[in-house]
Amino acid sequence: MKDKNNISDLKAILDSAQATKEELRSASKNQKDESLKKAAESIDSSRETLKAANEKDMEAASTLNLQDSFIDRLKLDDKRIDSMISGLKKVIDLNDPVGEMTDKSKSPSGFLVSKMRVPLGVIGIIYESRPNVTADASALCLKSGNACILRGGTEASETNQAIEKCMIDGLVAVDLPSKAIQLLKNQDRELVTQLIKSENQVDLIIPRGGKSLIKVIAEDSMVPVLKHYEGLCHVFVDENADLNKAIDISLNAKVYRYGICGAMETLLVAKSIANEFLPLIFDEFKKYEVELRGCEKTNEILNINLATEEDWKTEYLEPILSIKVVDGISEAISHINHFGSGHTDCIVTEDDSAKKTFLTNVDSSSVMHNLPTCYADGFEYGLGAEVGISTDKLHARGPVGLEGLTSQKFIVEGSGQLRK
Amino acid sequence: MKDKNNISDLKAILDSAQATKEELRSASKNQKDESLKKAAESIDSSRETLKAANEKDMEAASTLNLQDSFIDRLKLDDKRIDSMISGLKKVIDLNDPVGEMTDKSKSPSGFLVSKMRVPLGVIGIIYESRPNVTADASALCLKSGNACILRGGTEASETNQAIEKCMIDGLVAVDLPSKAIQLLKNQDRELVTQLIKSENQVDLIIPRGGKSLIKVIAEDSMVPVLKHYEGLCHVFVDENADLNKAIDISLNAKVYRYGICGAMETLLVAKSIANEFLPLIFDEFKKYEVELRGCEKTNEILNINLATEEDWKTEYLEPILSIKVVDGISEAISHINHFGSGHTDCIVTEDDSAKKTFLTNVDSSSVMHNLPTCYADGFEYGLGAEVGISTDKLHARGPVGLEGLTSQKFIVEGSGQLRK
Repeated sequence: MKDKNNISDLKAILDSAQATKEELRSASKNQKDESLKKAAESIDSSRETLKAANEKDMEAASTLNLQDSFIDRLKLDDKRIDSMISGLKKVIDLNDPVGEMTDKSKSPSGFLVSKMRVPLGVIGIIYESRPNVTADASALCLKSGNACILRGGTEASETNQAIEKCMIDGLVAVDLPSKAIQLLKNQDRELVTQLIKSENQVDLIIPRGGKSLIKVIAEDSMVPVLKHYEGLCHVFVDENADLNKAIDISLNAKVYRYGICGAMETLLVAKSIANEFLPLIFDEFKKYEVELRGCEKTNEILNINLATEEDWKTEYLEPILSIKVVDGISEAISHINHFGSGHTDCIVTEDDSAKKTFLTNVDSSSVMHNLPTCYADGFEYGLGAEVGISTDKLHARGPVGLEGLTSQKFIVEGSGQLRK
Repeated sequence: MKDKNNISDLKAILDSAQATKEELRSASKNQKDESLKKAAESIDSSRETLKAANEKDMEAASTLNLQDSFIDRLKLDDKRIDSMISGLKKVIDLNDPVGEMTDKSKSPSGFLVSKMRVPLGVIGIIYESRPNVTADASALCLKSGNACILRGGTEASETNQAIEKCMIDGLVAVDLPSKAIQLLKNQDRELVTQLIKSENQVDLIIPRGGKSLIKVIAEDSMVPVLKHYEGLCHVFVDENADLNKAIDISLNAKVYRYGICGAMETLLVAKSIANEFLPLIFDEFKKYEVELRGCEKTNEILNINLATEEDWKTEYLEPILSIKVVDGISEAISHINHFGSGHTDCIVTEDDSAKKTFLTNVDSSSVMHNLPTCYADGFEYGLGAEVGISTDKLHARGPVGLEGLTSQKFIVEGSGQLRK
C-alpha cells in the first residue's frame, strides 16, 4: 500500500488538521453543502473503483475465518453505495448550526452578551468494519465546521481509502482544505493511543463500535469522549395502560430488532394488571420464540424461567426478555433508575399524572410515553442525522445531531465600558 | 472533633447523596427558594457561632506560618457574613432551570419530541480556604436540584462545618432531605481521590482553586470535571481603533485587578498605529508601575524590556504586560489562537468588518468588542451567579451559571406508533 503513515506522521496529520480550523470555521453553508454534493458525485462516478477496493478487502477478510456478520458489514455493493450517497444528501439537507446567535441580553453594565455556536475544532472518529462510516462521519464533521481524523477498521482499509478520496474530491472542488478529512492509513493501534492522548490537538473523540472498544478508549483518553455504553431499556406497563397498546408497544420494543441499543430488555408490569396482561403477552412473544425470564410473581402467573438479579443488569441484544411485576409506578421508577443504563425507557399508560411522574423522574436520556423504545434514534427524532447516541449526561445526551459537534462561545459587545 | 468521617464513611455519604436525588429532582422552585431563605436566616442568627468557629480556625492557622493573603481569605467577619447572606439571596432571585421544556417538534413518524432540563444528580465541589464557598456552592447545587458533596480546605474546617449546619437548617425547615448538602469532615486526601473516582455516584466535579489543584484532579478523575485552567487574555488594538477608547480599555483590562483570570496579559497592536499608540499607553502604564515587555518592533518605539516567546505563553497575574506589534487582524487572531488559553480576548476597533472577523475567528470562550477583558464574569454577564468559568469547550464554556449544573433529556410522547 502506498500512502501508509507511521507514528511519527501522526504529528503531521494533527498539525495539518489544526491548520484547517480557521478556514473551516468561516466556511459558508453553501460551500460545505457544495463540497458534500461533489463528494456524492465522486462516489457515484467511482462505483467501480470503490467496489474493486472493497473486493480486495473482502478477499483478504475471507482468509481470516471471520464471522459472516462481520463479512456482511464489510461488504460495499451498489445498494450500499446508493445509501451512502443518500446519507450525504441528508446531511446537505440539515441546517448549518455554525454561527447561530442565541441568548442575546443586555448585561447589568449595559453591554450586550450573546452566544455564538462554533465548531469544536478537530474530531477523531474511531470505528470498526462498516466502511460507510467514512462518508457519514466525515460529512457530519464537515457540515459542522470541524476537521476530522478517521480511524476505520483494519479489514476495511482499502475501501475506506477509496471513500476518503471521494470525500477529498468534494473538498478540493470547492477550495476547502483537503486536510479537513484525513484517514489514518497505518493500522498500528499505537496511533490510536497517541490520537486519544493528544488533548491539545483533538477536541472530541467519537468511538463507534462495541462496548469494549468504547470502554478502552474512554479509560485511556485525555480528550473528551462521546460515549455510548449500553441500552438496557425498559417498558413499564402501568395499571392504567391500554392493554392492547401495551401489547403492541412491548412486542415492537423487543422484536423490531434484537441487536439495537433501543431494544427493550426488561418489561415491568404493574401488579394490579399482571394477571390479565401477562398471559396475553406470553402468547405474543411465543410466536417470535423470545425466551421469557420472570420474577417470582411473574412465575405465579406464567410458567417461565426464573430471572435472577443478573437478568435485571443484562443488555441481552438477543431474543431474551426479563419480566418483573412491580407494586406500581414508584417501584418501576426505582428499578429503572437503579438497574437501567440511562438510555431509553417508556411508560405505557392512559393516566396523565402517572405519565408526568414517570417522564420527570426517570433519569434517562430518552423517556417515552406510549412508544416503543426502539424509536430511540436521531433520524426518528427528526434530528436529520445522528452522530451517535450519548449515554453521558454532560454536553450531549441521547441521540446526538450536528449540535453535539459544536460548542457555544460568548460574544460580548461593549462600547468602552470600564469595570470599577 | 465529633462527626469526623473516614474513608469507609465515604460510601455512606455517596449512598445518602444518591438517595436524595428523587426528592431533589421534583422539588419545586418555591421549596428550594424557601430552603435558601431559611438557610440565610440561620446564618444571620448564628453569627456568634460562625465567628467562634472561625476563631478556632484562625487560631490554628496562626501557628502554621501561612501567608497573610491566605489568612485573609480564611477570615469570616460580619461583613463577609453579610455578603454570604446576600449571595444566597442572589441565588433565590435566579430562575429555576429544572423542568424547562424546549425544542418541541413533531417527529417524521408523528410523535412529539422535546427536551426537559433536569439536574445532573450529585456534584462534588473541591475548594480551598474561602469558607463562603460552602454557602455559595451548595446554594447553586440545591437551586439546580442537585445534591452536593463539599470538600473544603483543611484550615477552614470548623468554619465550614458551622456554615454547613446553617445550610442543613434550611433543608430541614422545608422538609428537603438533609443529606442534600454534605461536607466531608475528614480532611484525608485519600477521600478526595475516592470521591473523584466514584464515576457512577458523582456526576460532576467542580474544583475551585489554583491551577495545580485543578490539574491534579482533572488527571485523576473518572468523573467529568468542570475545568478552569488559566486566563491568558489579550486585547488587540486594531488599525481602526478609537485610540482613547483603546487606552482606557487596555488600562482597565490590566489594572482593574492583576490577579483575576480576566486580566489582560498580552497587548497586541496593529503596526499602522503602533507609533502613535504605544507612547500613549506607555505613560499610562507607568503611573501604575506595570512592567512592560515588548517584541522587537515595540522596542523600536518604546525603550522597555524585550519579550521572549515565554512571555507570550505566560499568565502573569502580576503588574507585568507583554506587548506585540502585529501586521494586522490576521496575525492578531493567529497569535491569540496559538498562544492564548481560550478564555477571553478583545478587539478594540470602530470597523464593523474587523469586529466581525475577530468575533468569528477567535476560538475563546468569550470574545469581546470594545470592552476590557476583566469583565469576564458570570454576574457581569447577567447570569446572576457563577459556578465557575470553564475553559473547556464541551458542556459548559465560559462563565457557568445554573444551566451548567443541569442536562437535558429527551421527552418522547407517542400514541402507540410502531416502528416498521
